[in-house]
Amino acid sequence: MKKLINDPSNVIADALRGIAAAHPELRVDHENRIIVRGDAPVRGKVGLVSGGGSGHEPLHGGFVGPGMLDAACAGEVFTSPVPDQMVAATQAVDGGAGVLHIVKNYTGDVMNFELAAEMVAADSGTEVVAVVVDDDVAVQDSLYTAGRRGVGATVLLEKIAGAAAEEGRPLGEVAEVARKVNAYSRSMGLALTSCTVPAAGKPTFDLPDDQMEVGIGIHGEPGRRRVPVAPAGEIAEMLVSPILSDLDYTGGDGVIAFVNGMGATPLIELYVMFNEVSQLLAKAGVPIARSLVGPYITSLDMAGCSVTLLKADDEILRLWDAPVNTPALRRGV
Amino acid sequence: MKKLINDPSNVIADALRGIAAAHPELRVDHENRIIVRGDAPVRGKVGLVSGGGSGHEPLHGGFVGPGMLDAACAGEVFTSPVPDQMVAATQAVDGGAGVLHIVKNYTGDVMNFELAAEMVAADSGTEVVAVVVDDDVAVQDSLYTAGRRGVGATVLLEKIAGAAAEEGRPLGEVAEVARKVNAYSRSMGLALTSCTVPAAGKPTFDLPDDQMEVGIGIHGEPGRRRVPVAPAGEIAEMLVSPILSDLDYTGGDGVIAFVNGMGATPLIELYVMFNEVSQLLAKAGVPIARSLVGPYITSLDMAGCSVTLLKADDEILRLWDAPVNTPALRRGV
Repeated sequence: MKKLINDPSNVIADALRGIAAAHPELRVDHENRIIVRGDAPVRGKVGLVSGGGSGHEPLHGGFVGPGMLDAACAGEVFTSPVPDQMVAATQAVDGGAGVLHIVKNYTGDVMNFELAAEMVAADSGTEVVAVVVDDDVAVQDSLYTAGRRGVGATVLLEKIAGAAAEEGRPLGEVAEVARKVNAYSRSMGLALTSCTVPAAGKPTFDLPDDQMEVGIGIHGEPGRRRVPVAPAGEIAEMLVSPILSDLDYTGGDGVIAFVNGMGATPLIELYVMFNEVSQLLAKAGVPIARSLVGPYITSLDMAGCSVTLLKADDEILRLWDAPVNTPALRRGV
Repeated sequence: MKKLINDPSNVIADALRGIAAAHPELRVDHENRIIVRGDAPVRGKVGLVSGGGSGHEPLHGGFVGPGMLDAACAGEVFTSPVPDQMVAATQAVDGGAGVLHIVKNYTGDVMNFELAAEMVAADSGTEVVAVVVDDDVAVQDSLYTAGRRGVGATVLLEKIAGAAAEEGRPLGEVAEVARKVNAYSRSMGLALTSCTVPAAGKPTFDLPDDQMEVGIGIHGEPGRRRVPVAPAGEIAEMLVSPILSDLDYTGGDGVIAFVNGMGATPLIELYVMFNEVSQLLAKAGVPIARSLVGPYITSLDMAGCSVTLLKADDEILRLWDAPVNTPALRRGV
């Protein structure tokens, strides 16, 4: 295992210290392992809290800041944060207008966020609404999930719901926007290589040199099938077709097209993929309204990519274009 | 070789099509393989042109836009663009105030940019000034270089000189700012793995599982020495010490600290490194004024990182903080 780390058991703590040193505009609570917007709680604004296992950076901590998340909880690598972290995050961002929990659909995350919401309600009476993200069309149930997994749509949802909250909209409306983004999003991913969890010290799975895994999850959990390595054009087809089969993307205002890197894939390859995706969408009569290309929800050092398509409408595009100021996504501020 | 590409000979063309599809605010000239700011030429503004071999994305094409580059020329992977591309780029961005060429110090790039400047002068009389970037402290001469190589400082220089040009400052002043950034910058890199050039199909060099290469260049060219794999703290020491030995960073307004990923290194590891770098700087009495963490000047699928420190002053910090709107770096717009 070759990694830029110290002791594998300290990776999260060390990375959080790095985030604190690099981004003084954020507050890092090292004991609770939460990253909080520096000016939280913002009076009268709905607070947005997300979190999950580490190893998906910049998700979620890189998306904390004005216009996106108010706080993120960092679990161990590929392991849900515990409810106490979520409680601390929720209380830190409670500005009196309630708090939205953005939860990727993994059994541990869903359960822990539910527990945290109950604890907060019992303790301070803060109103908490949860939105569960489940956009991955690859598999119905998985190793860690009942129902579909939450993947790339999480990034888009955190941006768009964050903009709605920043506008001062009430909790019910922010949650409604978030649910719409999830309902209008579908994703599919592919791995060329496994990732290596620091504490394990060896690849999560074996993938021969001439094979790739289609429909991979963001933790190296199995996808749909293994197939021989193929050109980018065929890979794009394998990712885009199941998405377009699952939701009608025609009509409306086109899509936000998101080609995501899994952590060890160079940007030049993601642009090669974006070209192929854009051609498939043109053939399908689906215009690209906005785009996002880069490593935003990763799987440690996995090589590969995922495609997320979000069916856009006026509201989604307006909120997507709104100012945001976070370490990993910044615009208009 | 596992890559998200089609034919290895079409990688650059395909990626440029992807960039055009993802960033309609830019103009891509596919014949000349140049990426141009959509509103170029900007009347009365100094034009900034850079470029180099591909495989370092987002450098340079990802830095085209208001507040940074006016155009970037994409060569083949790890190969200088040809003078004709540079001429086309220079003419496309000539707004009547002259053009600055930002050239990383590699023999081919320096020669071709010189030729292009002569061709432009002979043809249209456009005034061109070149600034050569040579910030890498690892080696004095290298496989592709007489003198030090140009690496991470290029990113900082393109941002800062871009801001100076955006302010409407004349060519001589913009070049002076650029030279100051280069003079105040030092970098050092490290590879955990080799990269694989698509056309070659196999790793550029062999690096055993328990070894890393200290002082690596951005093309996989040899560095200072091979040493056993070490913890992040020791790696940071190997990168920061030679930088601090080469330039006095004390006094003044601290540094812009840039921890760069080489292409296949996850962000969580870069933050672990940033923590170590920040501790070393604190010990050395060098405050961090600004930071940049992420893969900005890469080497295809190489795992590893580099550290760049830029000694800051008021002018540098003001220009660093100025608005910029490019695919890979965005702030204030």
